Amino acid sequence: MQRIASTLVSDLSLSRIAFGLWRLTDWQYSPAERVALFEQMLDLGVTTFDLADIYGDYRCERFFGEALKLKPQLRERMEIVSKCSIRLAGEASGARINHYDTSGTHVRGAVENSLRDMGIEQMDLLLLHRPDPLMDAEALAAVLEQLVAEGKVKHLGVSNFLPHQVDLLQSRLSLPLVVNQVEVSLLHSLPMFDGQLDHCQQHRMIPMAWSPFAGGRLFSADDADAIRVQKGLHAMCESRGLETETGAMQLAVAWLLRHPANIVPVLGSGNLQRLVAALAALEMELGREEWFELLRAGRGRDVD
Amino acid sequence: MQRIASTLVSDLSLSRIAFGLWRLTDWQYSPAERVALFEQMLDLGVTTFDLADIYGDYRCERFFGEALKLKPQLRERMEIVSKCSIRLAGEASGARINHYDTSGTHVRGAVENSLRDMGIEQMDLLLLHRPDPLMDAEALAAVLEQLVAEGKVKHLGVSNFLPHQVDLLQSRLSLPLVVNQVEVSLLHSLPMFDGQLDHCQQHRMIPMAWSPFAGGRLFSADDADAIRVQKGLHAMCESRGLETETGAMQLAVAWLLRHPANIVPVLGSGNLQRLVAALAALEMELGREEWFELLRAGRGRDVD
Amino acid sequence: MQRIASTLVSDLSLSRIAFGLWRLTDWQYSPAERVALFEQMLDLGVTTFDLADIYGDYRCERFFGEALKLKPQLRERMEIVSKCSIRLAGEASGARINHYDTSGTHVRGAVENSLRDMGIEQMDLLLLHRPDPLMDAEALAAVLEQLVAEGKVKHLGVSNFLPHQVDLLQSRLSLPLVVNQVEVSLLHSLPMFDGQLDHCQQHRMIPMAWSPFAGGRLFSADDADAIRVQKGLHAMCESRGLETETGAMQLAVAWLLRHPANIVPVLGSGNLQRLVAALAALEMELGREEWFELLRAGRGRDVD
Repeated sequence: MQRIASTLVSDLSLSRIAFGLWRLTDWQYSPAERVALFEQMLDLGVTTFDLADIYGDYRCERFFGEALKLKPQLRERMEIVSKCSIRLAGEASGARINHYDTSGTHVRGAVENSLRDMGIEQMDLLLLHRPDPLMDAEALAAVLEQLVAEGKVKHLGVSNFLPHQVDLLQSRLSLPLVVNQVEVSLLHSLPMFDGQLDHCQQHRMIPMAWSPFAGGRLFSADDADAIRVQKGLHAMCESRGLETETGAMQLAVAWLLRHPANIVPVLGSGNLQRLVAALAALEMELGREEWFELLRAGRGRDVD
Repeated sequence: MQRIASTLVSDLSLSRIAFGLWRLTDWQYSPAERVALFEQMLDLGVTTFDLADIYGDYRCERFFGEALKLKPQLRERMEIVSKCSIRLAGEASGARINHYDTSGTHVRGAVENSLRDMGIEQMDLLLLHRPDPLMDAEALAAVLEQLVAEGKVKHLGVSNFLPHQVDLLQSRLSLPLVVNQVEVSLLHSLPMFDGQLDHCQQHRMIPMAWSPFAGGRLFSADDADAIRVQKGLHAMCESRGLETETGAMQLAVAWLLRHPANIVPVLGSGNLQRLVAALAALEMELGREEWFELLRAGRGRDVD
Repeated sequence: MQRIASTLVSDLSLSRIAFGLWRLTDWQYSPAERVALFEQMLDLGVTTFDLADIYGDYRCERFFGEALKLKPQLRERMEIVSKCSIRLAGEASGARINHYDTSGTHVRGAVENSLRDMGIEQMDLLLLHRPDPLMDAEALAAVLEQLVAEGKVKHLGVSNFLPHQVDLLQSRLSLPLVVNQVEVSLLHSLPMFDGQLDHCQQHRMIPMAWSPFAGGRLFSADDADAIRVQKGLHAMCESRGLETETGAMQLAVAWLLRHPANIVPVLGSGNLQRLVAALAALEMELGREEWFELLRAGRGRDVD
């Protein structure tokens, strides 16, 4: 599989498509089943595994670690991405209210917890999960640099940060922010126009795309926008002679892959067959006109 | 009282809370009563006095000067902030229409007028009151630098400028813009998300907050947003054992003080008792979760 | 006529007002009539001629070239501006769907086509017509630089680019983007507030204004916004003793000329009398209050 190498640092590349584990706890797999799935993904070339401390109500990283423990040698073949700074209300976090916490104490604690839960020494990429209005950039940068210096984190990035939020944190950080993971899909193409992806391209950050299928709305929702996209995808499947269900999925992925900022879509299915089908998007050549046809379907209007 | 020192220049610091005089002419105080109030504020550590040429229909600076004349030695204990570039329609300005004027002639004239009205030689901080679509950054920068060179103005800043407007003016100015005074409150938290406060933090400008109580709406308005904030504040007063009225005011101030950009709230009451009560916010420790509870009350929704 | 010299490059200046040829094919002029009109414009000092490959369904550049062939010596007196990167659906382009194309192949082909159609060796200014979500800044910059190196294009610019889109392309380009042609008028003053014109001023790009009369809405539409502007213009005509129809047009141009970013309005009429009348705007002194009166008429509200 093609890989996206960061040009900001010499020792990081991501697989062209990442494997999202935010629903790992929902898949009802035994540890052995999980490790088998991981290995299959690795064998397919999908080496970037995307997690966060809060996924599965704080349990996904443990589920991941439990599996990895069965075959620890898989770890070396992976890039493990995790995130912190959201605190969800509930017993697991002890928080009364959903909030963000980019304090040094919390970030350090969260990273150490994640490493412990996953049973690894280092995460390849730590992302700050959400921009925090209370972010003290200087204090946060210092803690992030320490975590890298201690070897707990290899590289740094952000998620859902707007350009000005990236600029602020980067201004205090001596290490580059190498990734911004944002929501992008045919039903959420705004980041292609409002500067988010341009900022990534300009500063050579790799954008990862969460919810590349808009949480499934792309294929099954019945609101007007979704129906328009479904029709667009189905028409293109027909003209290309693709089976509708897998074809639509492939086109939705290919549409993201075609973007010049080198978007890495995060696919979060636990169904191997579906994942394999989606990977076929990598072999698709989506023409420029096809790309704009899908964009038009997504936005419901022509370009200006 | 704690002070906020500019890190852009060596000789400017503001008191953690500023005293806003935009209603000075409404307070119906004699010059002697005014100077007494000023001295009480100074004794409490509130040394930053905020004015503008247009306040009180162009009369506040004269009222201020009249009082200061009774005890001129107070001047040395103050940082006097004033603003220009708005021209209000009416007899006082001779303007037919409310407009902005950042021309060299107007800015110089306005500053000289303000100094004369206040009876001082120099203002510590001159802010351009509003971004002017007709701002010629180069010409304006030249005049501002001259005013500093002549000693009429010690430091420069802006008010209500969006980041791109700050960037433009700063690009032509050899002196740093040290302050941006913007509207921020529990009912106007947008500047915490849209880049205004991030830009301040990044460029080390001190943000001052005008209308920190949203013009009183925070405590007495009966629209849905205001009622939600009132409930939030009252609930927190109760859980902290604070008297409701002063507690709400203190929490609203403490909420601003908690922000990492070092917001200096501008309090514009002429009631000493109320001012003293508000200053107690400086001693409050507002927890992160409490901060987000109040944010949620202000925005009417959870964080993403 | 006054000229606007680029301060980014030494060998480009535009006439204070540009001549827009986007309706050239509608004017029903013979080649001889066209060249006569061009010469009259040049004699009036309007030397900047604005075109695009797509104007007149891809026929304007040919109409222009046909005329220029009759008197080739006029070319030296002109700055010829053209644009590419939009592909309109239809026979002329062979495209199925309106879309943008900033690929090297398309841009090079479009420029070479434009030169051939106009019968010239070099265009003075090539603008990318619209920001393209699929813009690969690095690849595009390389092609643009080659086109300049080959002498096919003298200088580079953009059109309808937002600041972050300019920043991205400029970050990969060793030559300066000297112009951004955007929509600005009394009925579309947003670029004066959202950063578009501030970005031009900051980076010393010359803004050209398309649709300076909002496609005629300024004078003849009957929506509420247009009527308000018409009233504002008419009242000012009266107070200045101007004939209403030409006066309104002159004021609308003078309003743009008054902006400190040195906006070059693009006038697209084929009626010489009307053009001459509009040029009288250059002699108008629009006062600051008058400028804000017209702004208020355009926005339907006072300044803050």
